Amino acid sequence: MTPKISSFLNDAQPPTPCMVLDLDVVADNYRCFSAALPDSRIYYAVKANPAPQILELLTQLGSCFDAASVAEIEMVLRAGADAARISYGNTIKKESDVARAHALGVDLFAFDSEPELEKIARQAPGARVFCRILTSGESADWPLSRKFGCEEDMAETLMLKAIELGLDPYGISFHVGSQQRDPGQWDTALGTAGRLFRRLAEKGLQLRMVNLGGGFPTRYMKEIPTAEAYGQEIMESLRRHFGNRLPDTIIEPGRGMVGNAGVIQSEVVLISRKSEADERRWVYLDIGRFGGLAETEGEAIRYPIATPRDGEEVEPVVLAGPTCDSADVMYEKVPYDLPISLTIGDKILIGATGAYTTTYSSVAFNGFEPLAEHYI
Amino acid sequence: MTPKISSFLNDAQPPTPCMVLDLDVVADNYRCFSAALPDSRIYYAVKANPAPQILELLTQLGSCFDAASVAEIEMVLRAGADAARISYGNTIKKESDVARAHALGVDLFAFDSEPELEKIARQAPGARVFCRILTSGESADWPLSRKFGCEEDMAETLMLKAIELGLDPYGISFHVGSQQRDPGQWDTALGTAGRLFRRLAEKGLQLRMVNLGGGFPTRYMKEIPTAEAYGQEIMESLRRHFGNRLPDTIIEPGRGMVGNAGVIQSEVVLISRKSEADERRWVYLDIGRFGGLAETEGEAIRYPIATPRDGEEVEPVVLAGPTCDSADVMYEKVPYDLPISLTIGDKILIGATGAYTTTYSSVAFNGFEPLAEHYI
Repeated sequence: MTPKISSFLNDAQPPTPCMVLDLDVVADNYRCFSAALPDSRIYYAVKANPAPQILELLTQLGSCFDAASVAEIEMVLRAGADAARISYGNTIKKESDVARAHALGVDLFAFDSEPELEKIARQAPGARVFCRILTSGESADWPLSRKFGCEEDMAETLMLKAIELGLDPYGISFHVGSQQRDPGQWDTALGTAGRLFRRLAEKGLQLRMVNLGGGFPTRYMKEIPTAEAYGQEIMESLRRHFGNRLPDTIIEPGRGMVGNAGVIQSEVVLISRKSEADERRWVYLDIGRFGGLAETEGEAIRYPIATPRDGEEVEPVVLAGPTCDSADVMYEKVPYDLPISLTIGDKILIGATGAYTTTYSSVAFNGFEPLAEHYI
Repeated sequence: MTPKISSFLNDAQPPTPCMVLDLDVVADNYRCFSAALPDSRIYYAVKANPAPQILELLTQLGSCFDAASVAEIEMVLRAGADAARISYGNTIKKESDVARAHALGVDLFAFDSEPELEKIARQAPGARVFCRILTSGESADWPLSRKFGCEEDMAETLMLKAIELGLDPYGISFHVGSQQRDPGQWDTALGTAGRLFRRLAEKGLQLRMVNLGGGFPTRYMKEIPTAEAYGQEIMESLRRHFGNRLPDTIIEPGRGMVGNAGVIQSEVVLISRKSEADERRWVYLDIGRFGGLAETEGEAIRYPIATPRDGEEVEPVVLAGPTCDSADVMYEKVPYDLPISLTIGDKILIGATGAYTTTYSSVAFNGFEPLAEHYI
C-alpha cells in the first residue's frame, strides 16, 4: 500500500468494501514497461480495469489500447486517444461490432478463424489483421484454456487467405497465460511466430508484427521477476528466432500495468467455528467471489492480506465471502495465516487488487452493491 | 418455453443476450409448492431473482420471503409485503445491518455462531432466531461447502444461550444443497433437527419451527421428482422424526420457484476449429460465465439448449462465452450435442434460466452490459 492510499483511507474513511487505486503506480508501471521493452508499443489491456482515470492517464503517457468490445473502444476514445491507437483484440466479435469499430476508425483486428476473418473483410475492408496462435499456458496462475488461438498450419493458411480477402496481413499474436511467472514461456511462442514468418516469407508474404500479448504478472504473494528481466528474456528470444530482421512488437499488459496499484479495503463480518472442537476458524469478509474477487476461483490468485494486528501470533483460517452462496469461499484448501487476535469489525487490506476486480463484480448478487472504486 | 415467451421474442425482437421470464409459471410453481406442503409457510429465496415483478406477484399470492441482505429486505418491502413476512436468512450479517433490519420491522433472524447471536441480541432484542445446522450436500448439483451451519452440539448450546441473551429461540434450519435431486436428503437433516428438539425439550426449551431450506430443483436436462413427491417424502420424514408433535415448517424455494419460468436468448457469435483436423468445433455465444451463466462453473448446472435447427444431425461442441477471459468456457469436459448446421448469427434459447442468472451477471466485464431482463 502506498502512502497516498493510506492517507486516503485514513481521511475519507470510505464505506467497505472498496477498491482504492494509486494512479502514480500505474504511471510508474508504464515507464517500467517502456524501459524494459523500448522497441515495443504498449497496448494496455483495457479489460483489466477500464476506469476513465486510468485510460486518461495512459493516453497522456502515450499508450495504445487493446480493447475487448465496442464499449471498451468507446471508453478509450472518450479518454482522448485516437482510434489509430486501438487494437480490437477479441477474436470473438459480432459482425455488427466489427462494423461499428471500423466506423469509429479502428484499423487493427485480431482473429483466429476463417469465419472471423471473413467478418472483418466484409465490415472493415483493408484493415490490418493479426492471427492469434494457440499456446499451452504453462506456469500461468490463471488457467489458460484452448479457447483462443489456432494451430500453426491454420495460421499460415489464414494469413494467405487474408490477402485474398483484401485485408492487410500484419502479424501474429499469442498469449502465454495470465500472471505468467516464467519469462521463458515467451520463447516457445516466439519460436512458432518466427517459423510462421519464414514459412509465409517463402510464399511471398512478409509479416511485420508480433503481438507478445499480456501475461506479465503483478506481485501477489510470490516474488516475481522484474519487468526488466522479462524484457531481456524476450529480446533474446526475438533475436534467436528472428535474427537481424526484428519485427515490430506489441505488448498488452493489463494485470502487470494496474494490479499492484490497487488495494481493496474490507471489513471482517464474522469469525466463527463449526463446533467447539473445530480447529479451523472461518473468517467472513464483506467482499467475496461475486463482489470482485472472482479470480479466487479454484484459489488461483492468492492476494496478500494485511490486517491491523499483523505481527501478532497467527493461525490458518478459511476465508469466505458474505453471500448466501456456499460456493462463495475464497481460500479453503490452502488456508491463510491470519492473526488469532483478528476481531469482527476489523478492516483488512487485500493487496494487488487493481486489476480484474471492479468489472468482474456482480450487478447485485444477494442484493450487495457492486464494488466501490476510488482513483487517487 | 411458454407460448407467452415465444410471442414476446417474435414480436419484440429484443437485442441479445436477454432473459425473458413468464410470471404465470412462477404463479404455477407457487401453487404447486403450496399444494405439496400445505402446512409449510413458503419463504421465497429472494436472491434467486429479486425482480420487482416477481416480488409483487408473490406478495399478492401470500408468500413470505427469505432475504440475504438489507437491500433485499428493502426490495420486499417495496413490493408491498409487511416486514412480518420476512426472514433475514443470511448467517453472516454486519451488526449495523442487523440493526437496520430490526428498525425496518424484521423479527426473524438466522445464525450459526455465538458472535452472530450476540449481534442479534444487541441490535434486535427479543427477536425470533433459528440456528442453521451443517449438512453434507450429497446429491446436489451446485456444490455445498461447510460455509454455513454448525454441528449439532453447538446448535444445542447456542439455542440455550439465545434464552440467556433475551432472544426467542424459535427453531432449527438446514439446507440440503441447491438443485437437490434426492428428496431423501431431507430425512437425514430432519433426523438431526428432531434430535435437537428432544435434547432441548429435556432442558426445558420447546422449539417450535423447522426451516427446511431450499434446494428444490428446477428441470434442466435431467428428469426431476415433482414437488408433490418432495412434499410426500418430507411429510413422512417429519412424522418419523417428530411423531405427533409436528413443528411449524418453513420452506425457502428459490431456483424451484423461478428457474423454469425464464429463458435466455443468445446469439451465436462464432463457430470455429483450432486446426483443419480438429474434430471438436467451438461455439461462442454472446453470453458466458461472466454475463449471467456463473452457475456453469465446474460445468455444475447444465441448461437445456434449443436451436432453430433442432431435429437436424448433431455433433458435440464446446460452448464458450464472448469475453477475452480463457476461463469463460461453459461446457468443455462434457460437450453439448448441437446441430452441425448451426450457423453464426443463429439465435438459441437457454432454458430454465430464471434463477441465479441476472444478478450474478458482472457489472461490465470486458465492457459487456449486464444481462437484460424482461418480465411478462
